[in-house]
Amino acid sequence: MKTYNEDRSKVSNLKIAYIGGGSSGWAYVLMNDLSKEPNLSGTVDLYDINFDYAKLNEKMGNDLSKRDDVVGKWTYKAVKTLKEALTGADFVFCSILPGTFDEMEVDVHYPEKYGIWQPVGDSTGPGGIIRALRTIPMYKEFALAIKETCPNAWVVNFTNPMSVCVRTLYKVFPEIKAFGCCHEVFGTQKIMASIVEEKYGFKPNRDEILTNVVGVNHFTWLTSARYKDIDVFSLYADYVNSHPEGMGSHTDENWVNLPHESKQKVKFDLFRRYGYIAAAGDRHLCEFCPGNWFLKDPETVKSYDFCLTTLDWRRKNYQELIDRNKSVASGEKPFKIGNSGEESVEQMKALLGLGDFVTNVNIPNKGQVSNNPKDVIVETNAFFSADSVRPVFAGEVPEGVNALVMRIIEEQEMVVEAGLTGNYELAFTAFTNNPNVCLPIDTARKLFNEMLEKTKKYLPYYEDYIKTQKA
Amino acid sequence: MKTYNEDRSKVSNLKIAYIGGGSSGWAYVLMNDLSKEPNLSGTVDLYDINFDYAKLNEKMGNDLSKRDDVVGKWTYKAVKTLKEALTGADFVFCSILPGTFDEMEVDVHYPEKYGIWQPVGDSTGPGGIIRALRTIPMYKEFALAIKETCPNAWVVNFTNPMSVCVRTLYKVFPEIKAFGCCHEVFGTQKIMASIVEEKYGFKPNRDEILTNVVGVNHFTWLTSARYKDIDVFSLYADYVNSHPEGMGSHTDENWVNLPHESKQKVKFDLFRRYGYIAAAGDRHLCEFCPGNWFLKDPETVKSYDFCLTTLDWRRKNYQELIDRNKSVASGEKPFKIGNSGEESVEQMKALLGLGDFVTNVNIPNKGQVSNNPKDVIVETNAFFSADSVRPVFAGEVPEGVNALVMRIIEEQEMVVEAGLTGNYELAFTAFTNNPNVCLPIDTARKLFNEMLEKTKKYLPYYEDYIKTQKA
Amino acid sequence: MKTYNEDRSKVSNLKIAYIGGGSSGWAYVLMNDLSKEPNLSGTVDLYDINFDYAKLNEKMGNDLSKRDDVVGKWTYKAVKTLKEALTGADFVFCSILPGTFDEMEVDVHYPEKYGIWQPVGDSTGPGGIIRALRTIPMYKEFALAIKETCPNAWVVNFTNPMSVCVRTLYKVFPEIKAFGCCHEVFGTQKIMASIVEEKYGFKPNRDEILTNVVGVNHFTWLTSARYKDIDVFSLYADYVNSHPEGMGSHTDENWVNLPHESKQKVKFDLFRRYGYIAAAGDRHLCEFCPGNWFLKDPETVKSYDFCLTTLDWRRKNYQELIDRNKSVASGEKPFKIGNSGEESVEQMKALLGLGDFVTNVNIPNKGQVSNNPKDVIVETNAFFSADSVRPVFAGEVPEGVNALVMRIIEEQEMVVEAGLTGNYELAFTAFTNNPNVCLPIDTARKLFNEMLEKTKKYLPYYEDYIKTQKA
Amino acid sequence: MKTYNEDRSKVSNLKIAYIGGGSSGWAYVLMNDLSKEPNLSGTVDLYDINFDYAKLNEKMGNDLSKRDDVVGKWTYKAVKTLKEALTGADFVFCSILPGTFDEMEVDVHYPEKYGIWQPVGDSTGPGGIIRALRTIPMYKEFALAIKETCPNAWVVNFTNPMSVCVRTLYKVFPEIKAFGCCHEVFGTQKIMASIVEEKYGFKPNRDEILTNVVGVNHFTWLTSARYKDIDVFSLYADYVNSHPEGMGSHTDENWVNLPHESKQKVKFDLFRRYGYIAAAGDRHLCEFCPGNWFLKDPETVKSYDFCLTTLDWRRKNYQELIDRNKSVASGEKPFKIGNSGEESVEQMKALLGLGDFVTNVNIPNKGQVSNNPKDVIVETNAFFSADSVRPVFAGEVPEGVNALVMRIIEEQEMVVEAGLTGNYELAFTAFTNNPNVCLPIDTARKLFNEMLEKTKKYLPYYEDYIKTQKA
Repeated sequence: MKTYNEDRSKVSNLKIAYIGGGSSGWAYVLMNDLSKEPNLSGTVDLYDINFDYAKLNEKMGNDLSKRDDVVGKWTYKAVKTLKEALTGADFVFCSILPGTFDEMEVDVHYPEKYGIWQPVGDSTGPGGIIRALRTIPMYKEFALAIKETCPNAWVVNFTNPMSVCVRTLYKVFPEIKAFGCCHEVFGTQKIMASIVEEKYGFKPNRDEILTNVVGVNHFTWLTSARYKDIDVFSLYADYVNSHPEGMGSHTDENWVNLPHESKQKVKFDLFRRYGYIAAAGDRHLCEFCPGNWFLKDPETVKSYDFCLTTLDWRRKNYQELIDRNKSVASGEKPFKIGNSGEESVEQMKALLGLGDFVTNVNIPNKGQVSNNPKDVIVETNAFFSADSVRPVFAGEVPEGVNALVMRIIEEQEMVVEAGLTGNYELAFTAFTNNPNVCLPIDTARKLFNEMLEKTKKYLPYYEDYIKTQKA
Repeated sequence: MKTYNEDRSKVSNLKIAYIGGGSSGWAYVLMNDLSKEPNLSGTVDLYDINFDYAKLNEKMGNDLSKRDDVVGKWTYKAVKTLKEALTGADFVFCSILPGTFDEMEVDVHYPEKYGIWQPVGDSTGPGGIIRALRTIPMYKEFALAIKETCPNAWVVNFTNPMSVCVRTLYKVFPEIKAFGCCHEVFGTQKIMASIVEEKYGFKPNRDEILTNVVGVNHFTWLTSARYKDIDVFSLYADYVNSHPEGMGSHTDENWVNLPHESKQKVKFDLFRRYGYIAAAGDRHLCEFCPGNWFLKDPETVKSYDFCLTTLDWRRKNYQELIDRNKSVASGEKPFKIGNSGEESVEQMKALLGLGDFVTNVNIPNKGQVSNNPKDVIVETNAFFSADSVRPVFAGEVPEGVNALVMRIIEEQEMVVEAGLTGNYELAFTAFTNNPNVCLPIDTARKLFNEMLEKTKKYLPYYEDYIKTQKA
Repeated sequence: MKTYNEDRSKVSNLKIAYIGGGSSGWAYVLMNDLSKEPNLSGTVDLYDINFDYAKLNEKMGNDLSKRDDVVGKWTYKAVKTLKEALTGADFVFCSILPGTFDEMEVDVHYPEKYGIWQPVGDSTGPGGIIRALRTIPMYKEFALAIKETCPNAWVVNFTNPMSVCVRTLYKVFPEIKAFGCCHEVFGTQKIMASIVEEKYGFKPNRDEILTNVVGVNHFTWLTSARYKDIDVFSLYADYVNSHPEGMGSHTDENWVNLPHESKQKVKFDLFRRYGYIAAAGDRHLCEFCPGNWFLKDPETVKSYDFCLTTLDWRRKNYQELIDRNKSVASGEKPFKIGNSGEESVEQMKALLGLGDFVTNVNIPNKGQVSNNPKDVIVETNAFFSADSVRPVFAGEVPEGVNALVMRIIEEQEMVVEAGLTGNYELAFTAFTNNPNVCLPIDTARKLFNEMLEKTKKYLPYYEDYIKTQKA
Repeated sequence: MKTYNEDRSKVSNLKIAYIGGGSSGWAYVLMNDLSKEPNLSGTVDLYDINFDYAKLNEKMGNDLSKRDDVVGKWTYKAVKTLKEALTGADFVFCSILPGTFDEMEVDVHYPEKYGIWQPVGDSTGPGGIIRALRTIPMYKEFALAIKETCPNAWVVNFTNPMSVCVRTLYKVFPEIKAFGCCHEVFGTQKIMASIVEEKYGFKPNRDEILTNVVGVNHFTWLTSARYKDIDVFSLYADYVNSHPEGMGSHTDENWVNLPHESKQKVKFDLFRRYGYIAAAGDRHLCEFCPGNWFLKDPETVKSYDFCLTTLDWRRKNYQELIDRNKSVASGEKPFKIGNSGEESVEQMKALLGLGDFVTNVNIPNKGQVSNNPKDVIVETNAFFSADSVRPVFAGEVPEGVNALVMRIIEEQEMVVEAGLTGNYELAFTAFTNNPNVCLPIDTARKLFNEMLEKTKKYLPYYEDYIKTQKA
């Protein structure tokens, strides 16, 4: 059990359960961040369907802890069952790939046959909806196991579709202490820091730019941005108006295959439409808008200077990370301790009472967003303190924008209901209602059924549904 | 002043102010209905920009009152000022054409150059938005005059855009006693009555089918429908599922020019998408949906068996009505008393305490629709009784449908704000947000500015706006 | 199963389940009303703990049905189990005495030892709270049986504490179609009819006076009252201001023992405090107000010209009714068909689709009262139509009054929670919070425990509670 | 205009407007706190009806700034007009005595004739209500002047009745950036720190105990309290249960005249009733409860070990502070720099962007308290950051407690409306509704009128009201 030292400045014997602990990338980040924090220590149980990769991370983590230059000492342990991981956990981190890249290939590329293009396909759109149906039963299982095993643990989600995952946790176990974390807003803060620098000659840290965040994950919006006496929001407006060409230039000739290449032109276009700052990557933002705005066809995508992330790229990228991990685990390559830009350790400290903290997270709407329904998952700032995460009042989603936000919220509500109850007709309504699915109803049904078929092994209610279709 | 007889069964000396009293069609209907009601009598002041047409109606109405077979005796009087009409009014009816057919031609047909097709163009879409901007200042004037002259009168609106007109009245004079009436729901009740007849061999009156109504005008939805022990909603579902070809057949070869021709295929398609009954004409319903569902191009429209109402048709139809009226006024033709299917006289009686009454109207949301914002104009059932109209609780707009309803509500809120304050940027945000305006932002701006230019004489803030565009 | 005739004007084979069917008074009323209605017929199953009294009513009812002058033909049948009564029921009427007069004696008179006086003691105050704890488990059983046996039946409650009973039904079976009926508002409408008569020389029927009702049962308030063109609310205000002595005079020297004697002085005092019409008998109203306003001591009660109903009176009155029933059942006395003033038959007809109807009932707050919480039981007007009861929007409980209403709502919420979960600490918080329980906390605990002890045989969680008290 | 240094760590040229700047006590505290803060500097304009006392503070403040050991350098300046004080202000502090001690004597002691005892009489009860009516017109004037002169300034209120003052500011100027500060919650945090010390042997700083605050000023409640891993709320519960005698002992034989003497017995009694921590001084808390709980008579007050603060004591205390100030201003006595325990300087720094900060303040309810109405003034935690104060979500006022909270909120709403519009009937409704005014309505009216008469020179609508009383 977790133990405070006498002056209550340090906590030891912490237990973290890491679901998806065979992760190729985020595990590395967590190890990095824990290794730098002198006031926390304990055990991380790594649970993953792929036990070998969990073992790989166990090796990397334990080697790291042994290093003299590392102040944060943790024991990593690959475990074979979810229950073992959760037993005694103070924190649960969830970061999984729901299904495999094969199902994700269907999510992202299959709809292309019908003229539907998706740069990410994991949050909304046909891909996001089918992925959600696959993910919800997994999260139901997690929620039930947490309720049973460690109901007082803090649960942190990183998996997409973010809102759907967090909503599922709360629907299945309403007393759960869960929140979802995403760094997309940070990226927009960095853009603003650059704009400050261009104007004033110095660059604030991104988290010194105080923003008010509203919206849902990957479709978050800033209604104010300030750095001390500087109204960064106005600076941004000026920048958009004077930069029709977008921001920056591509770093590579082959940028169309590089997910992180973007000139922020979607973001700027949305500012011109609504007068507020959309705060996520362009690849995400466009998926929440009417399909013919930014995703009409690959040429339109290219003209907005962002890319459609392919599964080929994802598979290659994944392999590179695994290779990197293997090299580190074998001692071939060093674990390079760096600045991850992530906040999990800060959040843990705040929840343990070692310092308050405000940041943006995904939690149920208790009224922090005044023109969205109660209980749906929204992304706003929240106040982290001893054993408590409380939303900070964020106000209204701006007029106009809220039409798009209310739509995605409805989609998520219908999909979560569908995933939990097996009423896939509701998911189909969400599917036809998606702005990127502009198909006649019979064609929409065909695509929906085809996509479901290809992910059916993850769908507990598939057979029941398909019977209704044959009738 | 209005006078009750001793047993309080009749009211005389009523005063109706009719704004738009030169009307070619609705005035005829009102005269018809008043002439049949033995318990009400008084004066109708006809106010219109076109004084001659008001005089025409005066003549028609007074001739009608003189007939021996007419039991409802009213004096009609064309008046030259709004103030005169309103003075002493117990009821105010508003039924105007905002601007002329020339402006309406721009509303409806100008966007066709950009591939945007509108079957009506008076409620939403580019046409509806521009029409709203023109109408709001007129309704502001009406509201101020009513506040000044007859604040206790009941105000009944028939003009489109319905929700925008009623919202403007309440924003300008919050204590106003106003509601908006529309017979589109009646049409869907008639369809259901036919379905009952087909199944059971008898046809209920349309108002015997008890429906629960939610939504906004012209995009209203029924969440239940019942005739005594018969669940009409289920009958409708069965009908839709077994009639992919729609309902009925066209009455005329040239049906594509006849606004009222429809096989209800949009209605049925929406039922298949959402599982609820859309309750307005197909020409209206499609304008609230993503443009490529039903309005992609004239061929798509044709395939759904409804028509794009042209201004040519409207002009011709108007002339026919005026000609009819002239013939009647001159005594050439008789005034044929018939069954209008309208409810204004029943509503008046209820408000005067002569019998309670429940019907669907457009009034501010006091919570009768639980998942729409407060105060916006929604269409639901309401309870009419002595000097009181109180909404009947209608519940939620169904999931999925509500994404579309929330969008139109936001559009209306932005447009009313724009029209009242001159902040046309808000109207532009509404314009680009409209599902039928799928244009790149610069093209959208161009169309918006062109359309504004053509209606500028009705726009008090046009010059201010155009300056910002030149800057 | 219920059967409609061909033109759907009559329904036969209806089944009513009457819980508490051994009733001495209300059964008589129901038989009376059913006997006068030509368009309904069927069976009434009478279920009661006292089977003999149910048999008595069976006899009375069937004799009545046989009479030639009776148009409403029903078969009455005493049944031995709740399940039998509910099987196939279209309507369920609940009108029981929770416990016996012995427990009620404790409710009403025991607190007098502590200086607490209660004129009724069945809705709030120490008596109402203890009675509620006894009643809730019974209503839980009813709700579960209805859910199991006749989930689509309409359930009508007459038992007090009204709000607590209806709330329990909905908490246990949220989809239940239940409402609660009470005639207290009718009494205030009659008072207003008399005031109209005094002023205008004619007396409207009480239900022709259209009132807007808000509040909770027995503490209902009218915010408007109108008869056609007459503003009855203003008439009432004038009457109150000019009648400090109250209304009417006592009919009997011994009025202090006659529950229905009242000069409406509590009602008038409340009007002077708040400017709105309290619409229940004075004996009820005073129980919801700070105890020292009207219930300080018997002298204060007497000065307000109402009475404290004793259990002696109740027992005597009950015996008289039973004697009357026995005489009727034996044929000694005739069943006198009269005008009950109750509305159950009208409500049944409306729910069967034989004519819409608006009246005040107790149902969950869906927003009809805008400044009370959602889902608590409020009393307002509602629209009865085919298989549907929908609240009519009533607006806000007036400022000032709402402090008292919110208090009783909280009391009810705590007590229902306590009764369902066994957390009697919550009931104790409600008890100390009651304005008529002005006791130091230790004395309050003593009284609470004593009262609980005396009703313990009806309290499933009593033993658990008493253990916590001994600890 | 305020100026940031290059690295934005310091702000100079700040302007503070101090309304009530002749203050005897709080001015001293502000000077003390400003003198210790090295990163802020500027000017404080002291505006007061008593210009001489403002001059006295000017002298004290400027002398203090000149001291070498003082790092916070400010210029103090007594000014003759409100407008001069507000011109260019970045911050406005309001801390006034509304009226004089003569009016306050009436507020507090006059009701004693009617058996009504008030330990403070400035927040609620007859005294608080009459004081509010006097204060609202003053705050209306302040709000209008701020709107006109310095609409972007942050306005901090310290005057009682706190909620009424802040509500008035927002009603008159809805865009105002105002909040109200009170240290009563701090006192309860200190009590809890002592309880931690007693148990664990070390004493946290009071602000390290993280509490969740709900309620209205002076009737605030804590629903959780935690110090790192220690659940302070449970510690408190244990303490209350094992300390029927209260906490601590009186420091003086004559404690009954010493306002700050208390054994927390009211606080503990309320914990026993409701299970939550009331977080204000006992003298305040008891005024929000039914009068016969703690304020029945002076003996009851004494039995709860707190005191009724007399005007004699207040006058004496005031004179002592003025004498102290005169001695300091004349150089006779030194200005002793100490630890005030107040947070104004921390708040200013946060608002200037020099460090975020969370504390409890009084601001409009945006949903942070989920079961209180929107827009009323509630006290909860809020997040202070660059130019922004945003409430932190606090949840529900506990059941049972909320009945009392809703009552005081209604009182405040009626009184503010009355004070702004002159509708003193609403204030009278609030008066009779006050739990400490348990009077028959005619006696209540008499007392109300007498008290109004004695404060009439501050009541702009008095003459209108008194006419209605004579009619």
